[in-house]
Amino acid sequence: MLPVAATSRQFRGGIDLGGTKIEAIVVDARNKVLGSSRHPTPATGGPPDVAAEMAAAMTEACQAAQVQPSDLVGVGVGSPGVIDEATGAVSTARNLPGWEGSYDLGPELASKLGTTVAIGNDVQVATDAEFSLGAGRPYRSLLGVMWGTGVGGGLILNGKPWIGRGGAGEIGHLVVEVGGARCPCGRRGCMEAYAGRAAMEARARKRYEKGKDTDLFKLMKERGRTKLTSAVWAKALERGDKLAVELIDDAVDALGAGIASALNLLDVDAVVIGGGLGVRLGEPFVERIRKAMMPHLFNDANPPDVLPAGLGDTGGAIGAALLAKPKSTRRPRGTATAGN
Amino acid sequence: MLPVAATSRQFRGGIDLGGTKIEAIVVDARNKVLGSSRHPTPATGGPPDVAAEMAAAMTEACQAAQVQPSDLVGVGVGSPGVIDEATGAVSTARNLPGWEGSYDLGPELASKLGTTVAIGNDVQVATDAEFSLGAGRPYRSLLGVMWGTGVGGGLILNGKPWIGRGGAGEIGHLVVEVGGARCPCGRRGCMEAYAGRAAMEARARKRYEKGKDTDLFKLMKERGRTKLTSAVWAKALERGDKLAVELIDDAVDALGAGIASALNLLDVDAVVIGGGLGVRLGEPFVERIRKAMMPHLFNDANPPDVLPAGLGDTGGAIGAALLAKPKSTRRPRGTATAGN
Repeated sequence: MLPVAATSRQFRGGIDLGGTKIEAIVVDARNKVLGSSRHPTPATGGPPDVAAEMAAAMTEACQAAQVQPSDLVGVGVGSPGVIDEATGAVSTARNLPGWEGSYDLGPELASKLGTTVAIGNDVQVATDAEFSLGAGRPYRSLLGVMWGTGVGGGLILNGKPWIGRGGAGEIGHLVVEVGGARCPCGRRGCMEAYAGRAAMEARARKRYEKGKDTDLFKLMKERGRTKLTSAVWAKALERGDKLAVELIDDAVDALGAGIASALNLLDVDAVVIGGGLGVRLGEPFVERIRKAMMPHLFNDANPPDVLPAGLGDTGGAIGAALLAKPKSTRRPRGTATAGN
Repeated sequence: MLPVAATSRQFRGGIDLGGTKIEAIVVDARNKVLGSSRHPTPATGGPPDVAAEMAAAMTEACQAAQVQPSDLVGVGVGSPGVIDEATGAVSTARNLPGWEGSYDLGPELASKLGTTVAIGNDVQVATDAEFSLGAGRPYRSLLGVMWGTGVGGGLILNGKPWIGRGGAGEIGHLVVEVGGARCPCGRRGCMEAYAGRAAMEARARKRYEKGKDTDLFKLMKERGRTKLTSAVWAKALERGDKLAVELIDDAVDALGAGIASALNLLDVDAVVIGGGLGVRLGEPFVERIRKAMMPHLFNDANPPDVLPAGLGDTGGAIGAALLAKPKSTRRPRGTATAGN
């Protein structure tokens, strides 16, 4: 055993920036969470408002961990949108308010927090976290499927993240039905058009407005929400709400087909399923997705492992905090000691 | 310029083992083709008959190159089926006669030819050849799509072949239509169910037998064929045969969707389209596939290059011959001097 970090100079921050919530954590050198804070993502305004909310959440997490933001080794951010890792600029983050253009999120946060900030793709950092510290630890290659508002994918191939020309991992936009349902991305027949929470909500609302009986929107209001959150879906399924069951069945079928397609192409060791819906619905639904995948899997005599995310919904923030690790101290796979 | 190989000890053999034909070549150290021979693949019998035909083709190619098979540095084979690269065994090669089980193709050929034999996946070696010597030379990552009897895929990621757990590259079995057409693999809705020549022929035959007007089978007979070869399809298209046009349109749509799906996941630098149909139909159809891909491409502001195979239908045999290259003399990418 190595000695536990003695000073807060070895603490790192991680922020998972989602369309619904901002989660900030502080971890020690062994990736143990020392403090955390969760803020709703601003629904109006623009990038500076989001950055201010992120800084506020990080500051609160630091208070809980009894450390000053400026004493952190650095802060990592998992962000949606197109990320310029070199400059810290984030552009076309469509789930965030007024973020069609480019915004220097990294430099702005660095100036607010008084420490260095590294930005990566939200889904990729969550996959990296599962690979280094979560359910993906036993494997050399991994497909992370983050099932939430959208369906994002992260890839680890031969121990390293694969991002292609910067845009890899869009598993939600594998075509499972040529000419099929309209996807929030504007295209047709994408897996996300059936399995993304935003697409499912739009479909539910349409059917509800046409008179289809469902408790989904009642449950939403009871919980004081304006969106069908993962918890709302889970509750509706628990009650056997027919529309919810039907839409989730379609989502599971689409996920099965899309994940099988990805595996037929890449034949990785394992698939880890996380994201808001993936974590909330958990193991029984991961098993259903695995079953839906099998009829489409080419190498069905030797299927890869399909597992629920090991880090739950904190994986995104933990993965973000990994970005803040000075490169020279990143330990090779297998020797990392996870605090989770 | 390096001096040209002075002795036949630097010559290598390559055999592309297909469901329709066996192509054998002899190349020099600079991958220049010195001799070649083409035999039809036996339609009956079993693996020993296929091996005998391969040895005969290789021996003829050697005669053309004025070298003894036993003087070759080695012979590489691109084979369908499941390949054990270590032992040279090939199993479940479903397009070959009586090849459901395992057969020691490597050792058998080595004994017949008197030189070492290395075996690789047919689609992967064709992709490797395009990457090292063909249309893929300017790129670091590549998707090879071999459009023929089936639709196979080969991957080069960051300069190296990616085979996953041994079964990667099955792009023909990406699901483009959940619950769609039956694929020769037995599953439903695979890209190959629409785009593979075998599936297209089965569909054409069914419609023809139901009274649909088409010249496809007349053209086949005129050419003394028992299958709708790529040349038959090309001729029918040239004549504007309605059924051929319709089925090829469906194939192009399926290829567009499947290739876009693969790119959304991997975001590689380029796609190279080869295979029997790909090479025969050539550039105009590669352009059609590129157009069919665009509506499904997530990163459509920055699409990768989509190119026809640079080595034509000899690419498979040239790639096979690369397998016979002693590893120590394989040159790093970019410094190889191709004879083609």
